[in-house]
Amino acid sequence: MELGAQLDEAAIRRVRGSFERQGLMRHLGARMTDLRAGIVTLHLPFRAELTQQHGFFHAGGTAAIADSAGGYAGYTLFADGTEVLTTEFKLNLINPARGDLLEATGRVIKPGRTLTVCHLDVWAIAGETRIHCATGLQTLICVRADRADAAPTERG
Amino acid sequence: MELGAQLDEAAIRRVRGSFERQGLMRHLGARMTDLRAGIVTLHLPFRAELTQQHGFFHAGGTAAIADSAGGYAGYTLFADGTEVLTTEFKLNLINPARGDLLEATGRVIKPGRTLTVCHLDVWAIAGETRIHCATGLQTLICVRADRADAAPTERG
Amino acid sequence: MELGAQLDEAAIRRVRGSFERQGLMRHLGARMTDLRAGIVTLHLPFRAELTQQHGFFHAGGTAAIADSAGGYAGYTLFADGTEVLTTEFKLNLINPARGDLLEATGRVIKPGRTLTVCHLDVWAIAGETRIHCATGLQTLICVRADRADAAPTERG
Amino acid sequence: MELGAQLDEAAIRRVRGSFERQGLMRHLGARMTDLRAGIVTLHLPFRAELTQQHGFFHAGGTAAIADSAGGYAGYTLFADGTEVLTTEFKLNLINPARGDLLEATGRVIKPGRTLTVCHLDVWAIAGETRIHCATGLQTLICVRADRADAAPTERG
Repeated sequence: MELGAQLDEAAIRRVRGSFERQGLMRHLGARMTDLRAGIVTLHLPFRAELTQQHGFFHAGGTAAIADSAGGYAGYTLFADGTEVLTTEFKLNLINPARGDLLEATGRVIKPGRTLTVCHLDVWAIAGETRIHCATGLQTLICVRADRADAAPTERG
Repeated sequence: MELGAQLDEAAIRRVRGSFERQGLMRHLGARMTDLRAGIVTLHLPFRAELTQQHGFFHAGGTAAIADSAGGYAGYTLFADGTEVLTTEFKLNLINPARGDLLEATGRVIKPGRTLTVCHLDVWAIAGETRIHCATGLQTLICVRADRADAAPTERG
Repeated sequence: MELGAQLDEAAIRRVRGSFERQGLMRHLGARMTDLRAGIVTLHLPFRAELTQQHGFFHAGGTAAIADSAGGYAGYTLFADGTEVLTTEFKLNLINPARGDLLEATGRVIKPGRTLTVCHLDVWAIAGETRIHCATGLQTLICVRADRADAAPTERG
Repeated sequence: MELGAQLDEAAIRRVRGSFERQGLMRHLGARMTDLRAGIVTLHLPFRAELTQQHGFFHAGGTAAIADSAGGYAGYTLFADGTEVLTTEFKLNLINPARGDLLEATGRVIKPGRTLTVCHLDVWAIAGETRIHCATGLQTLICVRADRADAAPTERG
């Protein structure tokens, strides 16, 4: 499947259904605003419940939506009967994360049967302004759906 | 100051005061359970609001407390009139993050006037069992308190 | 200066002069094939002296040219009288590094007075084929030229 | 097998034999000075051929021996008929890499059937002085020996 291609209804349901089961995303207030083959975008509107000590978005919230965006970007490409776990990720925080909302995009750079590697990018949006506030890399592992309780170092 | 040394009252107040201003930590339910010179430990009790799609702790919550633990570990060593920002961090998720609570420890490996580097470790605690569920590295930047709104690439 | 802009003669001399003082790049056989504002490309032709145990390029060689490409990409933007040190980098190895040569590109994502962040990418070139074999992130620190012997955690 | 345990003759031969096939390690002048279950140490004596522009060890050489130390630390634990590939690694450079030699240690933090995670540490040794100059994390993948030419994202 080509990167960025339209997903069929079943795939959209599968990915959105999984996202909606993530208690943390709901608790933070994140929404999945776009999903295509290998590319997923999430929005996280600003709330005082998401801040660090200076009143900006906490890097933990930035990381949480970046991780979910990448995880679901990979998951759009996975076969039925499999699940996704994050093996590792790394994030560089390059501009202040302040504004009306954060937008995180995960984009598959290398799909694989075992491991999938994604680029992660987060923008802080304030009115018309978009500031690139974080960039990262993530490694995902594809596991059998009945082994999603295993360590993220095991293929299952 | 020696790593692990007792902090004085003023330092403890400064660090705890900053932690209490982090809206995200309160929203997630994290508590600072130990702070010494260059070493800080946080606890995050399990709640459905912290889960990923399989009902375990979401890597974003793991990352959030690991980042705060490391940030405050560095901050215990910083001079008055300065603030801490995270420049980057990287986390390997090595075992399932499931249990009654997560315990995150940040530990300064290299204190610096500009940058400080920390090891991050997270354990999943279930009853008597402690499982090492994540290990990471983090780079912090020390900025002037009146420049904490600048980019985390600038010393201020 | 715009990313990708032509550099003037003095800047080209300064960057190439520094690259030529890197004993490791000469020992590996790396050449700087392109340099523009914030973007530098290096080539590393295949030799048995660069291999890992299966006869492909060793990840250490891939890392070495990726690090130098990024370091010099940042350095093209630095003021006179300053030097560049690598603070940290992270590399994902996504395809086999085999072929006639490796091409590494460093590209500044966020220039800063203190820290500069780069994307690193390496391709393995075999005849007409280009395979993306590594992607990474790097943080550079700008130090005073007379403090280039300090720790890469200090601005100098 | 317990971390740090003595290896048997066959395992030592298997690991040392593989290390000796790494053309890059020979070209740099690295030696394997210690190997135990899950822990491997390499030495890299200083030479002008290993320098960056200021005459210290180039981060690429530091990365190369850190990567090999970690890779072989993992390999000591792998089953016969398998090979090791590096999936990703990240290195923080925390002190100047200058001295008579670099010592790199790779240490398995999480052994796995598919992925193995290592801590990497490098010291710069000058006479009696040991300076911790780099610390890192690495993810290895275990592949079938006849699939060691596959991408480091595939279990093979």
